[in-house]
Amino acid sequence: MRVRANASKSKDEGGRMKDETFSVPALLQQHGETVTQHLKTMLARHASEVPPRLVEAIEYSVLAGGKRLRPTLVLESFRACAPPSTLDSPPSTSALTAAAAIELVHTFSLVHDDLPAMDDDDLRRGRPTNHKVFGEAMAILAGDAMITLAFEILAAECEPAIATALIRELAHSSGPAGMIGGQVLDMAGENQPLSVEQLKQIHRMKTGALLTTSCRLGAIAAGAASTQVSALTEFGAHMGLAFQIVDDILDVTSTPQQLGKGTNKDADRGKNTYPRLIGLESSRNEAQRQLQIAIDALKQMDSQADGLRNLARFIVDRQT
Amino acid sequence: MRVRANASKSKDEGGRMKDETFSVPALLQQHGETVTQHLKTMLARHASEVPPRLVEAIEYSVLAGGKRLRPTLVLESFRACAPPSTLDSPPSTSALTAAAAIELVHTFSLVHDDLPAMDDDDLRRGRPTNHKVFGEAMAILAGDAMITLAFEILAAECEPAIATALIRELAHSSGPAGMIGGQVLDMAGENQPLSVEQLKQIHRMKTGALLTTSCRLGAIAAGAASTQVSALTEFGAHMGLAFQIVDDILDVTSTPQQLGKGTNKDADRGKNTYPRLIGLESSRNEAQRQLQIAIDALKQMDSQADGLRNLARFIVDRQT
Repeated sequence: MRVRANASKSKDEGGRMKDETFSVPALLQQHGETVTQHLKTMLARHASEVPPRLVEAIEYSVLAGGKRLRPTLVLESFRACAPPSTLDSPPSTSALTAAAAIELVHTFSLVHDDLPAMDDDDLRRGRPTNHKVFGEAMAILAGDAMITLAFEILAAECEPAIATALIRELAHSSGPAGMIGGQVLDMAGENQPLSVEQLKQIHRMKTGALLTTSCRLGAIAAGAASTQVSALTEFGAHMGLAFQIVDDILDVTSTPQQLGKGTNKDADRGKNTYPRLIGLESSRNEAQRQLQIAIDALKQMDSQADGLRNLARFIVDRQT
Repeated sequence: MRVRANASKSKDEGGRMKDETFSVPALLQQHGETVTQHLKTMLARHASEVPPRLVEAIEYSVLAGGKRLRPTLVLESFRACAPPSTLDSPPSTSALTAAAAIELVHTFSLVHDDLPAMDDDDLRRGRPTNHKVFGEAMAILAGDAMITLAFEILAAECEPAIATALIRELAHSSGPAGMIGGQVLDMAGENQPLSVEQLKQIHRMKTGALLTTSCRLGAIAAGAASTQVSALTEFGAHMGLAFQIVDDILDVTSTPQQLGKGTNKDADRGKNTYPRLIGLESSRNEAQRQLQIAIDALKQMDSQADGLRNLARFIVDRQT
């Protein structure tokens, strides 16, 4: 599973050799470091005006590591749609900021989901959850602050011509018609039988919306044509569903040590999951099927989209 | 306390007679109805994609009435800075949307502040608090959804040329360097003695930032000159502090029936307040002093700013 970019030997400023092959973990690490650096810069710009304990609580979760999958999808979608002549340059500030913003929104959702009134989790990314360290009130406020920061940096840093499109996209997919709505459906569905179609709808909203939007943000930041945006939307939707099916599977088959968070939580809470509804083997097949649809959606795109193709395969094959 | 607009008799579409005098309660009611209608339109535009119970929880708090002070400040600041030739027309969509967005953000802060982990309040705007009706998890998510909705409608509805300025302004003032940061300082200051200067800083961030921004949003939406924006910023900052001092006073001197929410909460929680730090009489004097500075800040502005002047006086003289 290696990404071959293209033929020359020049090294771009982002550190990617034009002919270098990248394993997906290396790709995640490289983009992860880039976005972490950008997040640090963005947070530092605000820190002087912010109560120190709140800065600490925000940084505790935002800089805690994590796979940085969503920012990586933004940056690889940007690369997939960028003019070939720009591939040696680092991603634009708009793309980087979109990557940072979606990670802020994703992290807010984890901090709030972990609260006692929600999933009541003690462990996240291998460390105590935010409210375990800073208390519930601070965790609520730190999550709230991450949302406002996401939109502030988009408005402040992105090219004016695309900033509102990026903001509208992120707000819609993370809001009541997207991620937050999916969370509500997920809670409402606990301890009652759902159809596969209903479960798919929850997954589409709760995790799929933000994963799809990661791809769309990168495309918008690159000024992509609408056919490309559509292709990446289709890719994102099916990759996102595959991701969540695999998440459901890993919750059953992994140990907490492997995942860095509690496992078997879904069954304990009476949550509907793919393995519970259709069994482990059929779930694995369905993840593969969704992966194939996602890959097929990129068939009109050239090798610049190889990073996305490999990411999708990695997501389905991952063990954590 | 009546607002005289100007001399002709034509009635604008917003229902304000050019020579009509408006009491402040009538002004609040008129703008309140306008913004409530705009909020309903905005919410309806999303409702089909949103889980019904989440729509209910959002509407329960957003359409619960309240003084609509912040939207009224937006619309009167817009009026104060608008070209005289446009005064017969209703406020622009950008101004209306900014008014709706700031009410969404204000309401989110109330819903989260009322949570058991925060102020643990049972009563708000004369009704049970959101989490008392919908449960804590839903109240957390409904608040989160209000934030994302605020930024989504700004990005979707406002004139592109000013949308990012409005978003940046609202995100900054409601975020960790503004309202949310003030909430953190407020909690941290409970049960320990603060200086008046420290208390003023909390008030500036916790309530002042959003009140100041209400004025700035209206000015930005009107395309105001920077001197006007500065004057409204100064006005908003001092009016905002006067507002919070009066809030502190009313918490001591009112009944829950009068306020539609619990009273004497500040003392119960060991919160620092103006009456506690400098006494009731000095607090009243300080509110009057801040009011005068606020009014003085508008001295270069003509009668179009009379609504703002009267609002500021009303805020200090109010009994609820």
